[in-house]
Amino acid sequence: MTRLRTVAFDAGRNTVVLIDQRRLPHRLTYFRAKNFHETAEAIANMIVRGAGAIGATAAYGLAQGALAFRGSRLGEFRWHVDRVHKTLRDARPTAVDPINAMNGVRAAMAESSTVSGRQQLAMEAAERFADEDVAHCEAIGQVGLPLIRRGLRVLTHCNAGALAFVDVGSATAPLYAAHTIGRKFRVFCSETRPRGQGAALTAWELARAGIEHEIIADGAAGHLMQRGEIGLVITGSDRVLGRTGEVANKIGTYTHAVLAKRHGIAFYVAIPLSTLDWETKSGAAIPIEERAAEEVLTAAGPRGPVRTANPASGARNPAFDVTPPELITGIITPVGIFKPRELWKHRNRLGWVS
Amino acid sequence: MTRLRTVAFDAGRNTVVLIDQRRLPHRLTYFRAKNFHETAEAIANMIVRGAGAIGATAAYGLAQGALAFRGSRLGEFRWHVDRVHKTLRDARPTAVDPINAMNGVRAAMAESSTVSGRQQLAMEAAERFADEDVAHCEAIGQVGLPLIRRGLRVLTHCNAGALAFVDVGSATAPLYAAHTIGRKFRVFCSETRPRGQGAALTAWELARAGIEHEIIADGAAGHLMQRGEIGLVITGSDRVLGRTGEVANKIGTYTHAVLAKRHGIAFYVAIPLSTLDWETKSGAAIPIEERAAEEVLTAAGPRGPVRTANPASGARNPAFDVTPPELITGIITPVGIFKPRELWKHRNRLGWVS
Repeated sequence: MTRLRTVAFDAGRNTVVLIDQRRLPHRLTYFRAKNFHETAEAIANMIVRGAGAIGATAAYGLAQGALAFRGSRLGEFRWHVDRVHKTLRDARPTAVDPINAMNGVRAAMAESSTVSGRQQLAMEAAERFADEDVAHCEAIGQVGLPLIRRGLRVLTHCNAGALAFVDVGSATAPLYAAHTIGRKFRVFCSETRPRGQGAALTAWELARAGIEHEIIADGAAGHLMQRGEIGLVITGSDRVLGRTGEVANKIGTYTHAVLAKRHGIAFYVAIPLSTLDWETKSGAAIPIEERAAEEVLTAAGPRGPVRTANPASGARNPAFDVTPPELITGIITPVGIFKPRELWKHRNRLGWVS
Repeated sequence: MTRLRTVAFDAGRNTVVLIDQRRLPHRLTYFRAKNFHETAEAIANMIVRGAGAIGATAAYGLAQGALAFRGSRLGEFRWHVDRVHKTLRDARPTAVDPINAMNGVRAAMAESSTVSGRQQLAMEAAERFADEDVAHCEAIGQVGLPLIRRGLRVLTHCNAGALAFVDVGSATAPLYAAHTIGRKFRVFCSETRPRGQGAALTAWELARAGIEHEIIADGAAGHLMQRGEIGLVITGSDRVLGRTGEVANKIGTYTHAVLAKRHGIAFYVAIPLSTLDWETKSGAAIPIEERAAEEVLTAAGPRGPVRTANPASGARNPAFDVTPPELITGIITPVGIFKPRELWKHRNRLGWVS
């Protein structure tokens, strides 16, 4: 299988190239964002999603916008870059990854004092950001590899896969690493209603990679654990609190963690260091986004959403939940596996900046 | 609101009249089974589903078949009734309710020694069975009513509602009883993938009754419990083991029970006495039906199923799970609420026949 990058840059055409995730799993198509406005729209429309992937998209988008500037006046260029930054930032206002990624690109640009020099540095910084995203995920894979023993049956939830990053993914990284060295194991992808990322995206990735897997309804994990059919759970995270070890992730993660604890099954969370939040002091302080009821009342088919629920009923749709540290066996990072309550103790190794 | 019976009999036309549950929640239509073959097909095709509802349908089907017999020879009539019985039994071979219901009708018929006498007795016995189903559910409602305190937020799973019985339902019975006396409360219907009975059927029933409710993804219950938004869980059951207190019910029930225990939330199971299994000695001995993968890979829209999952992936689809007694606060029956481990002690009150 050739590897595909979820996010790439076509420098000759100054175009950001994205796997169009709205069309998956039904069709593999690419969206070519020809200017930074289209790149911002791709983030807003969820053509691209996942922390690493939208970070890299924003980094490329900023470089793309900078490269589109014609002229040599630094003042005008700065004003233009600010506008590009704001447009990309506003595409998904609560996400922190695009902002961090763009700040890195901006810092790199400051090393030159000419427009063309800054354009060149922006391009290089964005490429470096994307390459580092892949390198971080590959490091997660090597750190987590020993956990994926031969014959293991692994449960994962939602999509913390190659599609959520530039490539490789976080929760999937140890799986890809084990597959690469020929180790045999099986994966259960829990569907992850309401948006179904497990059934649509993770299953698509694993099928493409040739990793044996089966989709299950979210409510079936408990039964499979009860019957001894699941040996390990691994998920990604949207935010891990460095001070407490609490893990915010897609709705349903907490339930899998509670079940795993009851059955004595190891529960791991795999993240790049950029997912660590060193500021927030308690999981209760994490705002839980409530998304549109329509997501729960419908399901996405090949021709768009179809109504599955009673048309006269409403829905609640919390998109994330918070798993406490006592349910988590370890946090897999590019620099090692840590007990969730020991993240703070190891904060210097984990990239904490005071 | 006029109450609708899920299963009824049009004596003038010797026709069994069923709410066509395959069309819900999108359209309320009736299926008119004009002979016992059509009645058997309605059971097989899941036009009607739910233990009480298919029991009553089979009872009516047996009477319908008996009434269609022309002649007065008892030997031929007996042979004919055996054929009707077998046809209806084979419509859903693992279900016990149709068999029990038809055995009751046959026992009643034996009281007469003429064909026309037996036809009349069959008709009366089937009507009595359906009326008793409603009476049992209403008794469950009165027994469970004190649990539905004002302002309570109740989680239910799948459909153990009026649509699963002739009317009123088991898990829904206390809700309807509380609503009837004007008590205000709210219900969360968990969607119940893969077939979505919570979102499609329970939500339809509650909307029709005017009971406030919201649909949630199955994976969202844990988060809502964590945030104190659920005060009580109530489900039905396909089989309760009288000897151990174990409860077999729709996949996902066990997960809700594990979560409820962790959060100190009461977890009740509401059943008619016919759901008690006094023979089976262990939940591990309950066969768990694995249904077609297609159910997990698709979702039912108004125009039939649409594919939601990656087309190249397979699925596991266990349809039921078993909840151990230590997770269950009480079993609500028409004759009282019992601790699951005390069913055996109270077996005489609970209709046990040695």
